[in-house]
Amino acid sequence: MSRGTRTVIPARTGWSGLLTAGTRFRVIDIDGGQAADLWTFNAERPQEHLSAHHSRVHEGEIYPRVGWTFVTNERRPILRFVEDTSPGRHDCLVAACDRPRYELLGAGSSHGSCEENLLEQAAELGIALDYAPQPVNVFANFRVYPDGRLELEPCVSRPGDAATFELLMDAVVVLSACPQDIVGFQPGGPTDMAVEVLEIAGREAPGN
Amino acid sequence: MSRGTRTVIPARTGWSGLLTAGTRFRVIDIDGGQAADLWTFNAERPQEHLSAHHSRVHEGEIYPRVGWTFVTNERRPILRFVEDTSPGRHDCLVAACDRPRYELLGAGSSHGSCEENLLEQAAELGIALDYAPQPVNVFANFRVYPDGRLELEPCVSRPGDAATFELLMDAVVVLSACPQDIVGFQPGGPTDMAVEVLEIAGREAPGN
Repeated sequence: MSRGTRTVIPARTGWSGLLTAGTRFRVIDIDGGQAADLWTFNAERPQEHLSAHHSRVHEGEIYPRVGWTFVTNERRPILRFVEDTSPGRHDCLVAACDRPRYELLGAGSSHGSCEENLLEQAAELGIALDYAPQPVNVFANFRVYPDGRLELEPCVSRPGDAATFELLMDAVVVLSACPQDIVGFQPGGPTDMAVEVLEIAGREAPGN
Repeated sequence: MSRGTRTVIPARTGWSGLLTAGTRFRVIDIDGGQAADLWTFNAERPQEHLSAHHSRVHEGEIYPRVGWTFVTNERRPILRFVEDTSPGRHDCLVAACDRPRYELLGAGSSHGSCEENLLEQAAELGIALDYAPQPVNVFANFRVYPDGRLELEPCVSRPGDAATFELLMDAVVVLSACPQDIVGFQPGGPTDMAVEVLEIAGREAPGN
């Protein structure tokens, strides 16, 4: 694996970067058992963004895995899933946790959530988001059973496991180290994560 | 079953109504084998709307069925699925068909789509939508297999089958008789549908 700039994302907080087409970035579960919410927006027009419901139809599958090309709400390729050292459990069906989620769980309105992390990161970049799209929940082990049940099962990612993505257009990437500590799918409790942005020297950035 | 005002939705077109909390409406597949896309927006603030990804978590299931309460992107109840005479196959995973979908399928940009029907209905009501939320695809028989495959299998609704919903807040309801005639999940081809808005005389409209 090539190495790049590694940044720790402290537990419960967000990270964002404006990255050019062709850039690869790696999402790392430092301690294991922790999920990260991932969003990707067209750098020119954030109203075009990675769309889970369009991507599911594009791939004809519901569980993101290596080889997937995520598409936008305009059905254009935006992100490729290129490498994965984890057991390979990821989700794109479940909404980001948000303030109403924690209020309904009895945790009050100051708990912190992935949606608030997204909006904060977007605001820092000067992007006004009207809504939070469905994220890709990296390392989230949410399972659909044949009868349609959707179970938020515990993450199975191990310490140091990494999922690597490649951008197919210039994009704003937002990550949130999920602060969920009530619904028990993060057996490690909310922990730090890391993101490593890999160099693209020596190769052409692909167009789209 | 109580009767109400029945309106035919011509094949490939949309319908919308501003309905008060407590109103029930029935989506009818006149000829069978045809799907309708359904959206519901808070009448006061359309930026709050039925959200498939929040509803899946709320119900802990992926296939909408009688008994479901759909919630909004603010996790508030907006719609209840109260009655169903069909075999019970419905979807909330697959994006509405849109112009890029038909362009990619080789059908050109003037085919017509559920997303365009939504935007047209919203515009007629003076609602400016920034994006098309994931719809509920009534009578769409899309199936998830244990390995994660998502298959757009043919609709199994029969002539006259009806799905009935009750509003839990004042809302704008939009329906689209899906014009999909390339991907073969509508064995009847695009056909007319109908909507029947039922009276609520004699009962209190529930609050939320």
